[in-house]
Amino acid sequence: MTMEPRVSLITLGVDDPAASAAFYTKLGFHKAKDGNEDVAFFQLSGGLVLSLYRRANLFRDADLPDGGERFSGITLAYNTRSELDVDKLAAAFIGAGGRLVKPPHKVFWGGYIAYAADPDGHVWEIAYNPDWPLGEDGALTLPG
Amino acid sequence: MTMEPRVSLITLGVDDPAASAAFYTKLGFHKAKDGNEDVAFFQLSGGLVLSLYRRANLFRDADLPDGGERFSGITLAYNTRSELDVDKLAAAFIGAGGRLVKPPHKVFWGGYIAYAADPDGHVWEIAYNPDWPLGEDGALTLPG
Repeated sequence: MTMEPRVSLITLGVDDPAASAAFYTKLGFHKAKDGNEDVAFFQLSGGLVLSLYRRANLFRDADLPDGGERFSGITLAYNTRSELDVDKLAAAFIGAGGRLVKPPHKVFWGGYIAYAADPDGHVWEIAYNPDWPLGEDGALTLPG
Repeated sequence: MTMEPRVSLITLGVDDPAASAAFYTKLGFHKAKDGNEDVAFFQLSGGLVLSLYRRANLFRDADLPDGGERFSGITLAYNTRSELDVDKLAAAFIGAGGRLVKPPHKVFWGGYIAYAADPDGHVWEIAYNPDWPLGEDGALTLPG
């Protein structure tokens, strides 16, 4: 059996789901009715769901030890429509209670990006990529 | 400025992008033309892209130290249409060179899930959730 080319949920382990949900709500995401004190869900575009799940429960569920690390080499990227929007969103991350990991800067492939962390240390790349224009609905479709 | 409710890319830091791409290709994802020896891209449904990026570069780009951890509390979930498909996909992960973290089992909320890791230790939850039926196109839309 093979996988269809999709992801159903992205789950971020967080210390306090309510506080984390407040952070993402400040950034503009809308919390769904489903959920409880241990988990909050956000409907995203394209049939994808963001889940903020109590970190201890996530490690318990997966039977994996919590090594304490908050960045293990997964980033979520949010692509913007302009360089200015990268600056604005980097500021929004700070305003909502996150922190800047690396300020907005030009990169060799022609883009303009920043790295920002949510309150639990999960890292987002905020990126303007002139070679990958977004659809009107924000969808990213690779060229070719 | 606020964020539209979307994610553009999920980037997994991997030791060997070509080997990792081969793994995800075995599972059924289609590698895009874009890419090079350091990064491979896969177009997913809903305007989302999966990026497999050389781990050392990712940590360098973000100016973050590599703590060595491969699971820091982010899981990607792939929801299926049946319990049987969870069994089949868990087997497919092993067949493609991944490993089972936690075998398929019933969970208290009525679902049937397994945790499986890709060759770099990134953890997927393979889940059948009878309360969250998938659309024909595989999209997950929260109730309410």
